[in-house]
Amino acid sequence: MTDAAPGKVYLVGSGPGDPDLLTVKAKRLLEEADVVLHDKLPGPEIIGMIPEEKREDVGKRAGGEWTPQEYTNARLVELAEEGNTVVRLKGGDPTVFGRGGEELAHLADNGIPVEIVPGITSAIAGAEAAGIPVTHRDYTSSVSFVTGHEDPTKDESAVDWDALAATGGTLVVLMGVGKLPQYTEALRDAGMDPDTPVALIERATWPDQQVATGTLDTIVSVRDEAGIEPPAITVIGEVAGERERVVEFLEGY
Amino acid sequence: MTDAAPGKVYLVGSGPGDPDLLTVKAKRLLEEADVVLHDKLPGPEIIGMIPEEKREDVGKRAGGEWTPQEYTNARLVELAEEGNTVVRLKGGDPTVFGRGGEELAHLADNGIPVEIVPGITSAIAGAEAAGIPVTHRDYTSSVSFVTGHEDPTKDESAVDWDALAATGGTLVVLMGVGKLPQYTEALRDAGMDPDTPVALIERATWPDQQVATGTLDTIVSVRDEAGIEPPAITVIGEVAGERERVVEFLEGY
Ligand SMILES: C[S@@+](CC[C@H](N)C(=O)[O-])C[C@H]1O[C@@H](n2cnc3c(N)ncnc32)[C@H](O)[C@@H]1O
Ligand SMILES: C[S@@+](CC[C@H](N)C(=O)[O-])C[C@H]1O[C@@H](n2cnc3c(N)ncnc32)[C@H](O)[C@@H]1O
Repeated sequence: MTDAAPGKVYLVGSGPGDPDLLTVKAKRLLEEADVVLHDKLPGPEIIGMIPEEKREDVGKRAGGEWTPQEYTNARLVELAEEGNTVVRLKGGDPTVFGRGGEELAHLADNGIPVEIVPGITSAIAGAEAAGIPVTHRDYTSSVSFVTGHEDPTKDESAVDWDALAATGGTLVVLMGVGKLPQYTEALRDAGMDPDTPVALIERATWPDQQVATGTLDTIVSVRDEAGIEPPAITVIGEVAGERERVVEFLEGY
Repeated sequence: MTDAAPGKVYLVGSGPGDPDLLTVKAKRLLEEADVVLHDKLPGPEIIGMIPEEKREDVGKRAGGEWTPQEYTNARLVELAEEGNTVVRLKGGDPTVFGRGGEELAHLADNGIPVEIVPGITSAIAGAEAAGIPVTHRDYTSSVSFVTGHEDPTKDESAVDWDALAATGGTLVVLMGVGKLPQYTEALRDAGMDPDTPVALIERATWPDQQVATGTLDTIVSVRDEAGIEPPAITVIGEVAGERERVVEFLEGY
């Protein structure tokens, strides 16, 4: 704690990984910040753009353990109270399943000026990189983003797959590679057509992006054959079938 | 139709309106494109950045009529066949309720090379500009974006408000200023707590942004007193209550 005027924390989204998908504002803040706290999700290209002397990695630590969220929260407050302009860089968008909301609340509770700088979420850009529009007038009036890391067979699961299936809209599952068998089964049990198209997009917009497609029935074996690993999103719904229609003329990733 | 090598169409998202929230790629493409087809949604600041001689407005026409989607589709193909690098600039993200999926399919059907350049969607950035994280570990494991322009009392409504209420997740309604009374009632009828926090964010990230907050029960009169008009998003869920907690220290918009 010092007598310096309090600094400020920017909660900044990096987008899915292609540096070209940083916002103009995020790019400028990475240059201007005194310190950048980041984890691994923004990906090697974007992390490589940050001068080494101002980077602090709050992702996996040596020894393979995760930095506790409490440490990151406290460090943000400490750096700001020392008068620093701090960027907290998060993969995708900072408030889509990224603990951004918790960091925001903690900073405000401690009287630290804070600004949210949105980023391109992988939930949308990941689909687009594979030629899939998350909404489409012909098929869907809604799109839901949902976390896949809870076990749907457990009672305490907060995700209601029956309700999600009943929306009739596109579903995009984040953190959902490991539990793919469980939630695709839950969706079939909820009455979703087993032939519903499904796409997996790993490392969307990274140089080593991978896309694999199937149906609600086949996607688990597709995942295993293609060797899809995190980070990846799962896109479930008629829109996932659009990839086939457009892929021949699709450029970009 | 000419003999020129076919050009290419970029379906580009502008973000919610603040030019600083353009992606690095979108900004560069606006400079490099031969022609930019846009409507009004990107907002005056971003549209003002495009040199006048390459702008084509495919939004509202003189006389107040909308340009038919068929015209826009055909014009994109025509310009690309003439060898142009074409940017189709859309508000927010190009595939979130913006007919981007239809334009993508039409271009691919006509053999035009096409690339999607994601933009920051107003559905997320609009909430953030008001201090609201769309997900939060304490309250929600999902967030759904839904169109509010269908009348929920009509039989042919494709939106299942019962199912959306049952997800227990955050709901963000786009195009939902006019039918706010109908769908808030539908959500109450579906058993959603009438005290659920609700926020309206009009012209998010524009210089004249407006935010108004209430509950599922009060938000219609809040809308009327505040004079909220389109374009605006409606954020429904416990997360909307976070604004109050953070707003004193929130900077940005
Ligand atoms: C903790 S969540 C954070 C999401 C992030 N805030 C966003 O908006 O994209 C991590 C999950 O995001 C998804 N993800 C992030 N970046 C990705 C990418 N480049 N490609 C595919 N999935 C990605 C994966 O589902 C991953 O498990
Ligand atoms: C046809 S939809 C297009 C959405 C756009 N593709 C997106 O991702 O933001 C138009 C609706 O988007 C929302 N919208 C777009 N820009 C907005 C802004 N700056 N502030 C609030 N809402 C906005 C409004 O709900 C509006 O009715």
